[in-house]
Amino acid sequence: MPDILRREDIAFLLYDFLDLEGLSELPHFADADRSVYDAILESVEKIAEDRYQPHAQKLDANEPAFDGERVHIIPEVKQALDAYVDAGLMGASFDADYGGLQLPYLLQTAISAWFSAANWGTSGYTGLTVAAGNLLAEHASDAQKDRYLRPMVEGRYFGTMALSEPHAGSSVGDIRTRAEPQEDGSYRLFGNKMWISGADHEMSENIINLVLAKIPGSPPGVKGISLFIVPRYLVNEDGSRGARNDVRLAGLNHKMGCRGTVNCVLNFGDKDGAVGYLIGAPNAGLQYMFSMMNEMRIGVGLSAAALAETGYLHALTYAKDRTQGRKLTDRDPQTPMVPIIEHADVRRMLLQQKAYAEGAMALCFYAARLADEKRAGDPAAQEKATALLDILTPIVKSWPSEFGLRANEIAIQVFGGAGYTRDYPVERFYRDNRLNHIHEGTRGIQGLDLLGRKVPMNGGAPIRTLIGEMQTTMHEARAIPEFVEFADRLEKAVNLATETTLTMGGKAEQLGQEAYLADATIYLDMLGHVVVAWIWLRQALVASGKQAHEGDDAVSSGKIMACRYFFRYELPAIEAQCALLSSLDTTCLDARVDVL
Amino acid sequence: MPDILRREDIAFLLYDFLDLEGLSELPHFADADRSVYDAILESVEKIAEDRYQPHAQKLDANEPAFDGERVHIIPEVKQALDAYVDAGLMGASFDADYGGLQLPYLLQTAISAWFSAANWGTSGYTGLTVAAGNLLAEHASDAQKDRYLRPMVEGRYFGTMALSEPHAGSSVGDIRTRAEPQEDGSYRLFGNKMWISGADHEMSENIINLVLAKIPGSPPGVKGISLFIVPRYLVNEDGSRGARNDVRLAGLNHKMGCRGTVNCVLNFGDKDGAVGYLIGAPNAGLQYMFSMMNEMRIGVGLSAAALAETGYLHALTYAKDRTQGRKLTDRDPQTPMVPIIEHADVRRMLLQQKAYAEGAMALCFYAARLADEKRAGDPAAQEKATALLDILTPIVKSWPSEFGLRANEIAIQVFGGAGYTRDYPVERFYRDNRLNHIHEGTRGIQGLDLLGRKVPMNGGAPIRTLIGEMQTTMHEARAIPEFVEFADRLEKAVNLATETTLTMGGKAEQLGQEAYLADATIYLDMLGHVVVAWIWLRQALVASGKQAHEGDDAVSSGKIMACRYFFRYELPAIEAQCALLSSLDTTCLDARVDVL
Repeated sequence: MPDILRREDIAFLLYDFLDLEGLSELPHFADADRSVYDAILESVEKIAEDRYQPHAQKLDANEPAFDGERVHIIPEVKQALDAYVDAGLMGASFDADYGGLQLPYLLQTAISAWFSAANWGTSGYTGLTVAAGNLLAEHASDAQKDRYLRPMVEGRYFGTMALSEPHAGSSVGDIRTRAEPQEDGSYRLFGNKMWISGADHEMSENIINLVLAKIPGSPPGVKGISLFIVPRYLVNEDGSRGARNDVRLAGLNHKMGCRGTVNCVLNFGDKDGAVGYLIGAPNAGLQYMFSMMNEMRIGVGLSAAALAETGYLHALTYAKDRTQGRKLTDRDPQTPMVPIIEHADVRRMLLQQKAYAEGAMALCFYAARLADEKRAGDPAAQEKATALLDILTPIVKSWPSEFGLRANEIAIQVFGGAGYTRDYPVERFYRDNRLNHIHEGTRGIQGLDLLGRKVPMNGGAPIRTLIGEMQTTMHEARAIPEFVEFADRLEKAVNLATETTLTMGGKAEQLGQEAYLADATIYLDMLGHVVVAWIWLRQALVASGKQAHEGDDAVSSGKIMACRYFFRYELPAIEAQCALLSSLDTTCLDARVDVL
Repeated sequence: MPDILRREDIAFLLYDFLDLEGLSELPHFADADRSVYDAILESVEKIAEDRYQPHAQKLDANEPAFDGERVHIIPEVKQALDAYVDAGLMGASFDADYGGLQLPYLLQTAISAWFSAANWGTSGYTGLTVAAGNLLAEHASDAQKDRYLRPMVEGRYFGTMALSEPHAGSSVGDIRTRAEPQEDGSYRLFGNKMWISGADHEMSENIINLVLAKIPGSPPGVKGISLFIVPRYLVNEDGSRGARNDVRLAGLNHKMGCRGTVNCVLNFGDKDGAVGYLIGAPNAGLQYMFSMMNEMRIGVGLSAAALAETGYLHALTYAKDRTQGRKLTDRDPQTPMVPIIEHADVRRMLLQQKAYAEGAMALCFYAARLADEKRAGDPAAQEKATALLDILTPIVKSWPSEFGLRANEIAIQVFGGAGYTRDYPVERFYRDNRLNHIHEGTRGIQGLDLLGRKVPMNGGAPIRTLIGEMQTTMHEARAIPEFVEFADRLEKAVNLATETTLTMGGKAEQLGQEAYLADATIYLDMLGHVVVAWIWLRQALVASGKQAHEGDDAVSSGKIMACRYFFRYELPAIEAQCALLSSLDTTCLDARVDVL
């Protein structure tokens, strides 16, 4: 049985749920069609199985090590990355102008899902390179793109993003790395960066660090941050590799999970300064960085979903194979034991994982399609996609991080004691997935972004657009008798979420912004559940339509079953959350620190 | 700041909440008083700090290893265990007849909490020995106690419990290890055991394995299981160590957490059979084992609570030290950053941990006091304690395992990226704690035990006794104005839980036992939340009474604050669970396996 991902599930998401082929009708994506997509997906699945998955456990047990001179990584990682590059995958979503295949981000998302699920540690290097490359594509000069982006698209250079510093993580406005302007127009950078994934290794010809720093005399806080290209090796005029830049590894972080992706403390300017090249205008660095934040955060949610899904598939296989006990109705101890999937509690644990993992995956794929529409759709589609992405991004990042982790926790439970050992990968998925609530904006930051920025944005336009989409889905669902229950439940949930949002906004005027935002994380969870319920209903509608035309198929029946589970077992949890949120309770805000 | 446990908290539980001194009035415990308890607790705290905590990280990174001949464990473990034994702690709760101090199990529970929190891996060896010793004390013959229990109480022998086999974990009735009777009255055991903690090492003179096996010709299933003493080394008539018994280590399990406690696959009878001695009557083995199950399961819940509490204390210290960002009301990026405990979301995460960890700890201590009453109280107290332990044990085992783990997950979040590294212990607590839902009866087994056995037991007497206790607490709470809200909320929750239980029982008659038990795990969570809310209100009442007499103190104010948090933020979650449970939904029971 497949245990990375299931190709029929991915096909359902891409072709049935999200009409990937429809994107080929947009001029920007007109050069490819389903035959191209399918060929790529086939090659991706093969590389994931043959090159990524086999060394995942070994990589976890043998994390990158620094001997004081260089970082050592087991050779299978480079072999896997070479296979990825050789298949042309590094350029999948980049524009043809820079050597890319100019394919939809939706397809890129499916590609990433396969590699994240097969071996998240190894997949980190290419994911970071694509993200850094996207930033260059969007904001760098043509000369910079020629020099740095092209070799990234070719897979010769890898990329990183360097934001955090030891004293400044969430509080990015407080970074201290400084960039001194030079007469030749370049800069010299001095400072320390922390948590930089992929920033030191020997697996690529060069590493292009995209670094946030402050030019002396800039405004304080976030308004005075600029973005620089700081390559590990300087690049000569002819594109050949030049001298080592003054950026050095100070040490590695040793993590609970995600051990395969080297994570670094970097020193800039221990000698005479690290050479850096300004991207765009001074002091606009954070804005550039945030222009890519949607896709970076979709990427985080996606990896959480992919880890959840592969954990689920491992648990499903185990539950069908492992025998233990008998049906409750069978009191004879001499009958054979039954596969544990026959026990209701195990089925519940499997359905719960399926609802979390596949709900999260569908949400991330949906967001990726919105990103394609925002990029290449007509103006009306762009506007709508922008609004939806604005409101959904914190949820796309956080909901899978929360419930994907929960799914991995449950996968261990299905395995019992075996799942708690390193003989099976489910404990690794669990350790890996714990990172996703932390990086690229913590859970708390996402809550503040959603409730503090996105909900009030443009007079509430994004959330109204979202609710409009949900109403369309409810309307469609009412045409199918067995879905009326779901439409009713979704309507109730949407009304409750709306009332809660309005009540909170109204009370905020008297009680102030701190009280309004005190439980923003709970609001994030609550609205996330409503969104995922809607995503499940949309999937169920597509599945039902497919079955009406093509007859029963396992994927479609499974989607409808998981949809039912989500509406009955999960969505009602929002009622208690809404009651709490509506009260603008200040128990936490007012907590006495001295008695905690 | 203290980071293992806080002695004031433990003192609050023992003396204020649970009246440990009152137990000294029972004849069985009359030989000790508070001065003895305090002296022991002081020595425990010191050993935990000086001998247990310092090597916890090293032990995690250097787990026990088997070279094919013997198991190697870092020497600090034996040094710590020696300190434990030298302080006389191994005998704390054993009867004076066998060399013990005959102290209340409640005190033993506080001792265990300190060592579990300081270093769970190392504490496993003594915890298992105490559990095995208790079983011998209860069911072994006098001669067996002299030969095996005395040296355990002295700390010369360690103990294990060997139930599971590779093919039979939860389904213990299916074990295959057989015990062939010999002419001399002993037995020879043949078979394989799995997941046996502490079963092979060189740190004690002998290891006494208590092994479940079947005597040929016994009835099938659980009714044909007997219990045997199978020492690692045979013991000569004079008590000296004899020949090596035919029980051999087949291999070690390599776990995600709890790495310090060696966990073994054992072969019995590779040569001519492992010598075993029957405890009590044939075929009564499971009954003997289960007579100790209450205390074993309290022990699991306690370790989950202790890991949660120490994680909370680490997070609390970090949140006071680490600066990041500014208050929402401060828009000036040039003011100094504030400690993260100033942020509402961090306070919420701390209160949530406190409510989970200290709620779980209080629940386990309460159960330990019930165990003392069951053992040594007057007949009426014994009867009541028995009923309460019957209904509470599955909750005492599972609720801390669920919400203690959640607390550790949140502790990592408070630390952010730092918490995800092995530089801080919170990731280790999280890995350790994941075991507690699995061993000594999985979460699913606990749900079936609660809803299938304990709720219907004696016509519902245990749950009625529990509700009676809760009503007393509500009545007391109504006398304090600020607690009326909690009494109202608890009353609503108790009524809802009661209605739900009755509705489920009623529908079970039509829909059958499988439907009744399909969501037993959710029932377990639901009733657990009601119980912990009640435990919080009881603690708050004690704290309030203390403050009325002695003025404000930090521990009492903290308890009342956490009680408020639990009632407002956590307890309302049961409403959705009760609605689902009352419907006896069969979505999971009827799930189509072919489309999962």
